[in-house]
Amino acid sequence: MSDYHAIEIESRQKIEFVDITSRVRDFIRAAKSRSGLLLITTPHTTAAVTINENADPAVPHDIGEFLRRLVPEQGYFRHSEGNSPAHVMSSLVGASETLIIDNGEPILGSWQGVFFCEFDGPRRRRVFLKLIPG
Amino acid sequence: MSDYHAIEIESRQKIEFVDITSRVRDFIRAAKSRSGLLLITTPHTTAAVTINENADPAVPHDIGEFLRRLVPEQGYFRHSEGNSPAHVMSSLVGASETLIIDNGEPILGSWQGVFFCEFDGPRRRRVFLKLIPG
Amino acid sequence: MSDYHAIEIESRQKIEFVDITSRVRDFIRAAKSRSGLLLITTPHTTAAVTINENADPAVPHDIGEFLRRLVPEQGYFRHSEGNSPAHVMSSLVGASETLIIDNGEPILGSWQGVFFCEFDGPRRRRVFLKLIPG
Repeated sequence: MSDYHAIEIESRQKIEFVDITSRVRDFIRAAKSRSGLLLITTPHTTAAVTINENADPAVPHDIGEFLRRLVPEQGYFRHSEGNSPAHVMSSLVGASETLIIDNGEPILGSWQGVFFCEFDGPRRRRVFLKLIPG
Repeated sequence: MSDYHAIEIESRQKIEFVDITSRVRDFIRAAKSRSGLLLITTPHTTAAVTINENADPAVPHDIGEFLRRLVPEQGYFRHSEGNSPAHVMSSLVGASETLIIDNGEPILGSWQGVFFCEFDGPRRRRVFLKLIPG
Repeated sequence: MSDYHAIEIESRQKIEFVDITSRVRDFIRAAKSRSGLLLITTPHTTAAVTINENADPAVPHDIGEFLRRLVPEQGYFRHSEGNSPAHVMSSLVGASETLIIDNGEPILGSWQGVFFCEFDGPRRRRVFLKLIPG
């Protein structure tokens, strides 16, 4: 039996930031541990997890648009699948984030939300959650 | 009662790397656990936490200057507060870092220090520390 | 006695992504804990750790080549050692990654591998592994 939780995501665009904050909160509330660390990680190499503002949808849009313009579509890339830009973005943003869990809640700032970052969509994707008590 | 520690920071510049290594060490020495992981995380969406060289102040300066030149002040950004560059930098550098704690000390390389990265200062900011024994 | 594991790496190029996935798996299999989190971190300030595709060697090549072209060799950098680009890349990619351990195995996607990222080689380097049961 696996001791971690999977969130299923269906992205709809090539580059898309999917707000998973409420699903992360739901998992933590259902968990037995009221204090510890929560790892939020994706098993995909053309995606990432980040924490940023989720009040104004323009913020994740702007981050995605910056990344799209930063990484060239082609040129010197050798990977034949053509999705090297997505792999680059994945390593720039990172595959995981970690949150403090305290009194059964994630410690997030007023403006912070958790996003799954799609860089090679649309696709079916997953994010894994693992809570370590302490 | 909260089971994590808060560090208060007062940044003085728009982009600034504040060395918090000694405050991180103080927290670990005061903690009861001599072995485990330490999460260092910020609740702000226009800031970040990074580990880099703190011997020569030119190093954090150069990283900040690189980021300032990398992200355009405006142009295609939609977020109306005008601080989209700071949000972008936050996701590029990341909201947290994790250290190994061993024999009551953080495992850091000879040149490594822990920095709070301000990208939209000057402001009052916070960094949270959470130690998981193990 | 130290309660974490060190991997020794000898990089051969200025910028190089060294696949350490099998060494990470070996460590986990030898460890006693079958469930928890594994921190993979480097003590060097001109290097990083990332998770990305290790099936096609062109993928890590493309990420390294992107970073080499992104960060200028010189110009406005003040750090006198001349390796500011490597410090910048270190903070962009990040000093550590964290994996879920479940049933005694790391939870990695089909295409995911763990890389030590050299940005100022060739050099002798180290990566530290710390497993927290839970």
